[in-house]
Amino acid sequence: MDAHVIKKISRPAQNLVQELADFETATVHEAYGGKGALSCDIKPIDPSGRVCGPAVTVSGRPGDNLILHKAIYVAEPGDVLVATVGGYMEAGPWGEIMTVAAQARKISGLIIDGSVRDSSAIRRLRFPVFSRAISIKGTTKETLGLINHPIHMGGIPIRPGDIVLGDADGVVVVAAADLTWVLEKCRQRRDKEEKAMEEIRRGKSTLELYGFDKVLNAKGLREE
Amino acid sequence: MDAHVIKKISRPAQNLVQELADFETATVHEAYGGKGALSCDIKPIDPSGRVCGPAVTVSGRPGDNLILHKAIYVAEPGDVLVATVGGYMEAGPWGEIMTVAAQARKISGLIIDGSVRDSSAIRRLRFPVFSRAISIKGTTKETLGLINHPIHMGGIPIRPGDIVLGDADGVVVVAAADLTWVLEKCRQRRDKEEKAMEEIRRGKSTLELYGFDKVLNAKGLREE
Amino acid sequence: MDAHVIKKISRPAQNLVQELADFETATVHEAYGGKGALSCDIKPIDPSGRVCGPAVTVSGRPGDNLILHKAIYVAEPGDVLVATVGGYMEAGPWGEIMTVAAQARKISGLIIDGSVRDSSAIRRLRFPVFSRAISIKGTTKETLGLINHPIHMGGIPIRPGDIVLGDADGVVVVAAADLTWVLEKCRQRRDKEEKAMEEIRRGKSTLELYGFDKVLNAKGLREE
Amino acid sequence: MDAHVIKKISRPAQNLVQELADFETATVHEAYGGKGALSCDIKPIDPSGRVCGPAVTVSGRPGDNLILHKAIYVAEPGDVLVATVGGYMEAGPWGEIMTVAAQARKISGLIIDGSVRDSSAIRRLRFPVFSRAISIKGTTKETLGLINHPIHMGGIPIRPGDIVLGDADGVVVVAAADLTWVLEKCRQRRDKEEKAMEEIRRGKSTLELYGFDKVLNAKGLREE
Amino acid sequence: MDAHVIKKISRPAQNLVQELADFETATVHEAYGGKGALSCDIKPIDPSGRVCGPAVTVSGRPGDNLILHKAIYVAEPGDVLVATVGGYMEAGPWGEIMTVAAQARKISGLIIDGSVRDSSAIRRLRFPVFSRAISIKGTTKETLGLINHPIHMGGIPIRPGDIVLGDADGVVVVAAADLTWVLEKCRQRRDKEEKAMEEIRRGKSTLELYGFDKVLNAKGLREE
Amino acid sequence: MDAHVIKKISRPAQNLVQELADFETATVHEAYGGKGALSCDIKPIDPSGRVCGPAVTVSGRPGDNLILHKAIYVAEPGDVLVATVGGYMEAGPWGEIMTVAAQARKISGLIIDGSVRDSSAIRRLRFPVFSRAISIKGTTKETLGLINHPIHMGGIPIRPGDIVLGDADGVVVVAAADLTWVLEKCRQRRDKEEKAMEEIRRGKSTLELYGFDKVLNAKGLREE
Repeated sequence: MDAHVIKKISRPAQNLVQELADFETATVHEAYGGKGALSCDIKPIDPSGRVCGPAVTVSGRPGDNLILHKAIYVAEPGDVLVATVGGYMEAGPWGEIMTVAAQARKISGLIIDGSVRDSSAIRRLRFPVFSRAISIKGTTKETLGLINHPIHMGGIPIRPGDIVLGDADGVVVVAAADLTWVLEKCRQRRDKEEKAMEEIRRGKSTLELYGFDKVLNAKGLREE
Repeated sequence: MDAHVIKKISRPAQNLVQELADFETATVHEAYGGKGALSCDIKPIDPSGRVCGPAVTVSGRPGDNLILHKAIYVAEPGDVLVATVGGYMEAGPWGEIMTVAAQARKISGLIIDGSVRDSSAIRRLRFPVFSRAISIKGTTKETLGLINHPIHMGGIPIRPGDIVLGDADGVVVVAAADLTWVLEKCRQRRDKEEKAMEEIRRGKSTLELYGFDKVLNAKGLREE
Repeated sequence: MDAHVIKKISRPAQNLVQELADFETATVHEAYGGKGALSCDIKPIDPSGRVCGPAVTVSGRPGDNLILHKAIYVAEPGDVLVATVGGYMEAGPWGEIMTVAAQARKISGLIIDGSVRDSSAIRRLRFPVFSRAISIKGTTKETLGLINHPIHMGGIPIRPGDIVLGDADGVVVVAAADLTWVLEKCRQRRDKEEKAMEEIRRGKSTLELYGFDKVLNAKGLREE
Repeated sequence: MDAHVIKKISRPAQNLVQELADFETATVHEAYGGKGALSCDIKPIDPSGRVCGPAVTVSGRPGDNLILHKAIYVAEPGDVLVATVGGYMEAGPWGEIMTVAAQARKISGLIIDGSVRDSSAIRRLRFPVFSRAISIKGTTKETLGLINHPIHMGGIPIRPGDIVLGDADGVVVVAAADLTWVLEKCRQRRDKEEKAMEEIRRGKSTLELYGFDKVLNAKGLREE
Repeated sequence: MDAHVIKKISRPAQNLVQELADFETATVHEAYGGKGALSCDIKPIDPSGRVCGPAVTVSGRPGDNLILHKAIYVAEPGDVLVATVGGYMEAGPWGEIMTVAAQARKISGLIIDGSVRDSSAIRRLRFPVFSRAISIKGTTKETLGLINHPIHMGGIPIRPGDIVLGDADGVVVVAAADLTWVLEKCRQRRDKEEKAMEEIRRGKSTLELYGFDKVLNAKGLREE
Repeated sequence: MDAHVIKKISRPAQNLVQELADFETATVHEAYGGKGALSCDIKPIDPSGRVCGPAVTVSGRPGDNLILHKAIYVAEPGDVLVATVGGYMEAGPWGEIMTVAAQARKISGLIIDGSVRDSSAIRRLRFPVFSRAISIKGTTKETLGLINHPIHMGGIPIRPGDIVLGDADGVVVVAAADLTWVLEKCRQRRDKEEKAMEEIRRGKSTLELYGFDKVLNAKGLREE
């Protein structure tokens, strides 16, 4: 693995990021045409945690966290660290001290395709972390890696500056270039969903509302 | 897969269902002679959630939820939707809108051998859901399936009208025809367990209480 | 499997155990030179639960809990039951009645490489349990086993009288003979970590604090 | 678990069983309307092994094989033992001696939702075994179980006398009552498939052959 | 999911593809700077199978194979079908008939992040297939998908025309644009490895050969 | 992790090792009182491979193989390398060159709780390897580890000089101090098993042979 850090990345306008932060991941994923969702194995360590911000991408080695320390000081306030460590679960390259350091730097959260430790301290500090597992075990601080190079994680590609949104359902990533239109679709979708739920609460069926009845008939569903 | 809906199913008397609702799944499973428990991978998305009601069974295709929409309107108040979708985890065929629709129909809950999305909304709405996983990803609405045909799920057979009970430990299913005697056994078991716990709290050992001491001796346990 | 119980085990001084109880598992694991952590699959059934005490080790057969009943009456107040049952997940050899019995005996908690049932009752009773899974299914009470023989569990060896510490991150085990020096290292580590976090909160980077900047340079990290 | 043996079961006519033995599991599964396939985790320990015969069903306890010994002497020549042992993988209740005993009894093979040991001896003896795993570890011979009661295994129900067919793809089960019509469908399917493959080898596309081109157009596939 | 087919893709020069075919995947992965390897869960169904060719990428729905049929007729001789079907394992969208069709079209092989069926027929026909699992179950032929759009599979991105190489170790993908220099590195690596193995066979240690002895000393390995 | 190598270990007499080599792992495990079997996830990459020899134990970091190179030159002819690398599967710290080096040193084989690469070359060279998985990906050569310190692997403890036996069923480890009596038990067991199989082939049932009939009756098995 190369050892290289790109310090400058472009980030979307902050107001767009803030607006995205209010949507649910499932809404954004639908609005995005079914794209951007990480594998369902990457989950919040605290289901009430939420995060939204531009990705600072990190590629590290399994069982080592030196490059993650560096990343804390490459990220800017509001950024989310998004780290791959080779799919290794039996050591947590992130713990309480790094959480304190990240909060001192006003970093918004961490998405990691591995484990973290000090999970109760992280919850107490209310730092949003999305990981595959929790492990007691610490790591070495010996090997280098890449910061702000494109990565692939949980089944999708992530570039530095892409917007990462995490909630109880998991994590969805929106390419920076797509943020404007995805937001527009999210707004439309939310309006539509709110109206739909209003109508459903008043007694309309989803079969009527979405025309599923016709689809079911056309496809030949037999009832008795 | 066939496409067929059976609208009329027979359900046990409501007072029996209500009585079962107060028991723990582990008690019912023991009372039932060690039968009826689904695989331990199907768990509540909210550990404080509980559900009890007659099953409306649904067989759908992986990654599609059209037939689940239909099932909301086949089920009657108090019913529990029990759905198989081919063991597919990477898409959630159930979300917030369907939860709102199900609650408008007074459906009691959902058991699914797959994933759901909008998990925080579902928790907020306090709709009990038992699933294998949580996934951000939505589904198509294109393929048919079966409603109220017998299914096999989590290692056991479930017929429409069987009683489904879910709590923090998981889900247990009681065949409609067995409900009366299982309830009787549950009552006996609860009484016996309450008395046992009372005696244990007062200092009696489980070895004495259940005669395990004799079994251990008879089997030749050596102590030093 | 043999059937044998050793009743007398030596335990470390109680004040040492009590002191260890205040540390986090991740701290102890680091202080212990990266030793003693169980596999990350063994987790608290209630993330707010914590346990610390000398191990009473139990080796039982899959799907049977007779020997676990016996162990409740071999253990002394403050002890932690640490049980292997052959890696079987689809039955819970521990439930509400055993929890009540264990609390009557002032046992501190249970670590099991299997499942438990009655999980909501266990949570309500605030008895700390660390397990691989939760299962509704009960067990037979027919087969013997070993109590207070050395066991291997979650990747590490555990002897009776070793100190077991569990928290939200998982479980770490300290050999009785190592407890004094591990505690000394824990104290040092905690002091050092608290000072470090204080400095980090004031604005010092972890790169400076730990000299990682020099390591990164020495190893040739390129930045642009 | 109860302890009960049913000695007499009805079996389909032998010529029907022999005819089914020549089909592939995938063909039979399709002919059977997509029913009867066990979970893809139950696989042959030797991919060249094949088995076909009436099921003698066995329900045993995890880690014990006493009831399996009994089953060898309940089964008749040509039968297939189909055994559940509670989903336990870390012990093999079947090994070389039982294989020799089963072959002395002219039993056709074994399907087990657990592990076997002595796998190289079993391969050398050319006894077809389909299992979830291979384990070195033996079992106790202490607990009873059920023989020739209905079981549920790998996601489907199996009754004694149902026909079990296993090959490199896995295992499919045909209910005794359905065997005649399933065989008829299998024959039709094989003829159709052979003709189809002949036409495809001569250059016809599957799009033409099955009319998929029209389906693709009707559904609006865009090409460029 | 969109429904769109791109028929024309650019492919690397055939002589380059043929040369790559002679290298091992592990060699190519190293030569490629540790890039391009799919997750180790995607494996040959026949360990003696090998494949090399330009990727025709396919994105389909779980449990449906209509778009895979189409892809057989979009691919050109020598191409490799590389298909994602949403990570669904419990149905095999590829079987004997499609294998015959693919061979009639001189397609080189199939890489699929799902299951296949008719595995013994596929082995007998010597068509190289790399999949996550084998399943008896067939699929519907109802839903559309994408052909020759970029996909992400097994942790890496794949574009149409990238070169896919599979052997007993798994699958590695080389971007078309990198093929020339990767081949050059492969040649160098092979020469170096052959010389190295020659020297090792003659008695030289890898510690000497690669200078690891110095590294071990520099890092402070203590021996006794 | 410390970095330390112990060069001198004691090994059992070679004739004892050679005698053990002829037994099956399942026989040895039974003869050893049900002890010594590694988890069933550690399997031969070639089911026809067998290995037997004294363990040279290695503890390395995930994703690094520097210490494994060193171990090749610490081991003596006939030894088996037994390596833990932190349970990391997505990189293979052992490949063709190391196999050639190990064979030049007359090392008997490798047991690893991780992955290997170049699996077809390893098979071709007929070097017995037992691993959890196969991975294309290589490793760094940067971090140190321990050689000939006690390790824990696959659920059991292994000390340098313990005898490791691997075959198609998996791996069993016999402590050096127990080898003499375990061999004696193996011989007895083999004789007994051969006689038993002879009697079974002649028509005696296992129920008679082992007295299981009496056990079944005593335990109250009901037949009809």
